[in-house]
Amino acid sequence: MKDPAQSKRPRYVEIADELRARIDSGAYAATGKLPSERDLTIEFDAARNTVRDALGILRGEDLIESRGGSGVYLRTFERIPRDAVERLSRKHWGAGRAVWDSDLQGRDRQENVTVEKVDAPDEVAGTLGVRGEQVWRRSRVYHSEKRPIQQSTAWYPADLVEGTAITKRNTGPGGVYARLDEIGHGPARYREELKVRLPLSAESKTLGITLSTPVILIVRTAYDSSDRPVEVNQMMLDADSYRLIYTFPS
Amino acid sequence: MKDPAQSKRPRYVEIADELRARIDSGAYAATGKLPSERDLTIEFDAARNTVRDALGILRGEDLIESRGGSGVYLRTFERIPRDAVERLSRKHWGAGRAVWDSDLQGRDRQENVTVEKVDAPDEVAGTLGVRGEQVWRRSRVYHSEKRPIQQSTAWYPADLVEGTAITKRNTGPGGVYARLDEIGHGPARYREELKVRLPLSAESKTLGITLSTPVILIVRTAYDSSDRPVEVNQMMLDADSYRLIYTFPS
Repeated sequence: MKDPAQSKRPRYVEIADELRARIDSGAYAATGKLPSERDLTIEFDAARNTVRDALGILRGEDLIESRGGSGVYLRTFERIPRDAVERLSRKHWGAGRAVWDSDLQGRDRQENVTVEKVDAPDEVAGTLGVRGEQVWRRSRVYHSEKRPIQQSTAWYPADLVEGTAITKRNTGPGGVYARLDEIGHGPARYREELKVRLPLSAESKTLGITLSTPVILIVRTAYDSSDRPVEVNQMMLDADSYRLIYTFPS
Repeated sequence: MKDPAQSKRPRYVEIADELRARIDSGAYAATGKLPSERDLTIEFDAARNTVRDALGILRGEDLIESRGGSGVYLRTFERIPRDAVERLSRKHWGAGRAVWDSDLQGRDRQENVTVEKVDAPDEVAGTLGVRGEQVWRRSRVYHSEKRPIQQSTAWYPADLVEGTAITKRNTGPGGVYARLDEIGHGPARYREELKVRLPLSAESKTLGITLSTPVILIVRTAYDSSDRPVEVNQMMLDADSYRLIYTFPS
């Protein structure tokens, strides 16, 4: 910081530049691991917060990621492009494809579904207009490349979906939306509402993320052509695993 | 945790229930402040992480909020409902309204805009298809109720907007989109891409948030009717101040 011509760039940006250059040159390729925050503060003779900001820049560029308790690693997991309008379009599920296929484009995937008939929680019952009635609940955790990336719980009015494959673990080609369509209640429009926060301990365990990795909470409501709400879906996404895309007309 | 019938609810949920009941009864209304994490660990004889999770539940319910260095307060700021499709619709700006008006619905607001002609950064130039050319950059920080809520930087091809009010601080009724429309390049469609992460130090200062309050990064591209990109807008939102809404057909 002695030469005024060089002092324009904050120290944390300089450190980020140096670390980026090392990453690009393959310096950490063998182990995939960066030096600890502590070692970096010593090497660069910088404050902890300065090193954190430098790492924050590289994290924001998707070059590195933190793993709970074990340090900072080169990032290998490519963000999943979740293109909401495309993935939920009739032309997608109407052709027998899973919503999920649109996100993962052939990447490795696992999921485990539990399906239960339960009393509707107040908030869900209010949205679906089925207070005091039962609903079918479908819960699952999605994994890709052995990494949990999303937890979701979806709810359907029991009077509507009783007897359909929506009450089974395997809903068949095109999934829930194709089955709703077959009974005359296929989605005509959707509403997604997003909030973002840090996870609770239990949530961080479910998603295998640190307590300082934000989660994106999405509540989707699907409406049929007569504007009846036919699904409420509460999702919790590991923010580090996703980029969300929304396209719409003016 | 002695009575098995009561032991089903995790301890942090019990503490959250107790604190919620106190909030509802007005126990903290006079000062608007809750006891410190430390005091709560003593009062409830609970581990720090247990108290944190309890507060995390209440934070997730928008009942409380943390303020950097000074503790936990009753939340008074109501989340801004950012309805992307509505706020950016031609019927909105075409009627001379500001995009911003749609979000705030008469709430108190301030903003300060800086407008400059600059060389296009690589990424922006790539999206706008104007490599090596100049662009007009409009930067601003939005406030509502004295709280900074969003920082945004938008870019426009200089050859397109030269001589229009887009190069002025005050763009007039309907803002930038109405002006683009007047020169035959009004937005026909939009693409918003979202990522979420924790802020860098400087970012947390700009938005007046703690380092553990996530930010939502939105990059919007607006396309005219011939599919030319006419705007790139990079936004950083205080995640605690917003709920995002997207509506779209199946």
